Amino acid sequence: MSGSELSYYRAIDQCTRSLKNLEACLDKAETYSAEKKFGVEVLMAGRLAPDMGGFIYQVQSACDYVKGAAAWLSGQVPPRHEDHETTIDEVRARIRKTVAYVESLIEPQYAEAATRRVKLSWAPGKAIGGEDYLLQVAIPNIYFHIVMAYAILRHNGVGVGKMDFLGPMNFVDA
Amino acid sequence: MSGSELSYYRAIDQCTRSLKNLEACLDKAETYSAEKKFGVEVLMAGRLAPDMGGFIYQVQSACDYVKGAAAWLSGQVPPRHEDHETTIDEVRARIRKTVAYVESLIEPQYAEAATRRVKLSWAPGKAIGGEDYLLQVAIPNIYFHIVMAYAILRHNGVGVGKMDFLGPMNFVDA
Repeated sequence: MSGSELSYYRAIDQCTRSLKNLEACLDKAETYSAEKKFGVEVLMAGRLAPDMGGFIYQVQSACDYVKGAAAWLSGQVPPRHEDHETTIDEVRARIRKTVAYVESLIEPQYAEAATRRVKLSWAPGKAIGGEDYLLQVAIPNIYFHIVMAYAILRHNGVGVGKMDFLGPMNFVDA
Repeated sequence: MSGSELSYYRAIDQCTRSLKNLEACLDKAETYSAEKKFGVEVLMAGRLAPDMGGFIYQVQSACDYVKGAAAWLSGQVPPRHEDHETTIDEVRARIRKTVAYVESLIEPQYAEAATRRVKLSWAPGKAIGGEDYLLQVAIPNIYFHIVMAYAILRHNGVGVGKMDFLGPMNFVDA
């Protein structure tokens, strides 16, 4: 690999890690609701505006963009995951199912990522190249929905901090 | 460029575009406050939780992560931009100053991005490699603060939609 280019595989892997970090925020949501003596389903139904998707929708969308990015960039058709989650345990399971799918793909499958053309259901008749798809569609959408899920918890008082969102980073001694 | 790798330059360029998309959301904030007859400074001071940074802080942070990523990955020391913004016009100017800096850098300056080691003020004694810095620090932080700024506007009733956040994408006819 040359010094000036990035790996598609690693870019997707980091998105998957960000989903795992969101799963850890679910534990904080559960603890908080127990401490404050309300049902955690209140947080699962939380939203920032009445005409905006709630917490579970944000997680489902983040999962689907991660799954789609991994699939299309590695030459697969993404498996369909139905949006039937209503409980926190089902939300956890949705994240784990997504992570398991992405982790079933191996680096050589991304070899042609840059030259693939991706079609999206919300852009009929159009396609987008692999690099533009990753940078302009996948990454912004994945982080949009993960951050919005985080924001809903934070707005409702859950003690999640930026480091919960960022998760582990590969720092070394300087 | 091989088919399996991504450009650091293009990854940073997309982050810069996302900042420009946020600037367009400022126009919607201004229009909304005029229609509803309140001062736009209310939105600039908006926040999602009392112990969380407000709108202007979120924009300043997004700008600094974009500026830092462009600088460190291209072998520069980022210029210092003081956090003195209080008005919407000053917020616009901060975004434009950041964009102008990043756009002053050219693709060949990123040639050694992957092999650079970056030190961060909030991780004393530590460093992180160029690829990990981009994927684990820069991109997540940039989108965290941009999405949080967007979320504050949305929560306060500004009619920003996902397409305002995503901005133009390079779709072609399928």
